[in-house]
Amino acid sequence: MFAANQIPFQKLSSREVKFIKSLRLKKHRQQENVFIVEGAKNVTQLLASSYTVPILVGTPNFLAAHPALWSKHDGAILQTDETTLASLGNLTTNKAVLAVARIPTHASEAPPEEAWGLVIDDIRDPGNLGAIVRIADWYNIPTIVCSPTTVDLYNPKVLQASMGSFLRVQVHYTPLPAFLRSTSKPVLGTFTTGNNLHQTQPPCPAWIVIGNEAQGISPTVQSYIQQRITIPRYGKAESLNAAIATAIVCDHWQRQQSRG
Amino acid sequence: MFAANQIPFQKLSSREVKFIKSLRLKKHRQQENVFIVEGAKNVTQLLASSYTVPILVGTPNFLAAHPALWSKHDGAILQTDETTLASLGNLTTNKAVLAVARIPTHASEAPPEEAWGLVIDDIRDPGNLGAIVRIADWYNIPTIVCSPTTVDLYNPKVLQASMGSFLRVQVHYTPLPAFLRSTSKPVLGTFTTGNNLHQTQPPCPAWIVIGNEAQGISPTVQSYIQQRITIPRYGKAESLNAAIATAIVCDHWQRQQSRG
Repeated sequence: MFAANQIPFQKLSSREVKFIKSLRLKKHRQQENVFIVEGAKNVTQLLASSYTVPILVGTPNFLAAHPALWSKHDGAILQTDETTLASLGNLTTNKAVLAVARIPTHASEAPPEEAWGLVIDDIRDPGNLGAIVRIADWYNIPTIVCSPTTVDLYNPKVLQASMGSFLRVQVHYTPLPAFLRSTSKPVLGTFTTGNNLHQTQPPCPAWIVIGNEAQGISPTVQSYIQQRITIPRYGKAESLNAAIATAIVCDHWQRQQSRG
Repeated sequence: MFAANQIPFQKLSSREVKFIKSLRLKKHRQQENVFIVEGAKNVTQLLASSYTVPILVGTPNFLAAHPALWSKHDGAILQTDETTLASLGNLTTNKAVLAVARIPTHASEAPPEEAWGLVIDDIRDPGNLGAIVRIADWYNIPTIVCSPTTVDLYNPKVLQASMGSFLRVQVHYTPLPAFLRSTSKPVLGTFTTGNNLHQTQPPCPAWIVIGNEAQGISPTVQSYIQQRITIPRYGKAESLNAAIATAIVCDHWQRQQSRG
């Protein structure tokens, strides 16, 4: 064990502070090909995953108490105080650790032919995309293909809302028309009018398209959809939130699969 | 029709500005027994409902263009500019209208014996409660009973997330133990372990309890629950968001009812 004052790591420099803070912007994340993961739980899961982690920044107390976390770590390990650590990211407090991780190459490629899952046509709200990733993880839906205008997965607010599920779901960003044209899997979409979800057995593997919060599925993407499904409404609300609709579709999808 | 410069209404005074802004705080809403509704769509629905609306504040342009909205209105009608109007509430822009409405008496009473629906044990996030009200409205679930520590329905962020559904769902705040002790309806609850939701036919009418985001259902409330249900997990996410879980439960509940 280490005492906090024995932690052998270099202090975070002001240049590194500036670099890490710059990663709040998608432009800088894409230039540098890295993103930030915050908090003990998320960073622990990150280090156990296949992600590459060039930089780890922790408070002396946290690093001293968790040598197993960094003892086999290849990348840089830096120490800083709690106030500076929290200022680097999106959390209001962070007394533990932050990691700078490499964006995997699959993120900007179309998914492999065997993939299946959700297609996201232009979700803009970070909380919604994070919730959708968490739902996909809960329902064992392995892949999410996003339109390039969908909010960035590596936006700190998206990662926070995903509650660590971004480590277990493969998320790709690629133009949807080319992708949907080339896939051999059936393509379904959620609409305000269509076949009653409860009376549908969605095929699996397949792709189910979720549309933008306000506009729904764009006309171009609609032209690739072979089956329209709709969540039956029993009351008077005009619509459901996109993440809520995704959850109901995924629950039904896996429920039907497990019935065989 | 009116031209905007012919609008016959008094200008909003600085005293009224101060009064309306004070309603952001629950303490002041409860003292005055009123709350704010913002935006043309929500205010239009509000005026068509049974709510009492003591004050209506609009921009001259909006009031001039929508005489039908206020021509039969009993309460005060005031005019102000767009900047002041937006500063009164939670919206970043409001070029239209804002209403001060009376909190209905049922809000602080236990529901009538014939009521059924959801019981909310201490949801803290305004977005979650708003989403739950919207889900209840979509699934025609008439009543929501909240613990007194649940976030206030009349919090502007809750109302905004409910997308107008707060006008169609009866929301009550009352201590849950006394209420659950006295109801004659079955009481179910959502837990991480329990009967598989997909293999359950929840009775209707009944009460289904949804717990706090982090703590779940409190031990005291648990003692009134006759059946524990759980949403089956197919993947690895540790949990689902409380509003997402509510949607899946309500979708299943109404799906089973409509099968008879």
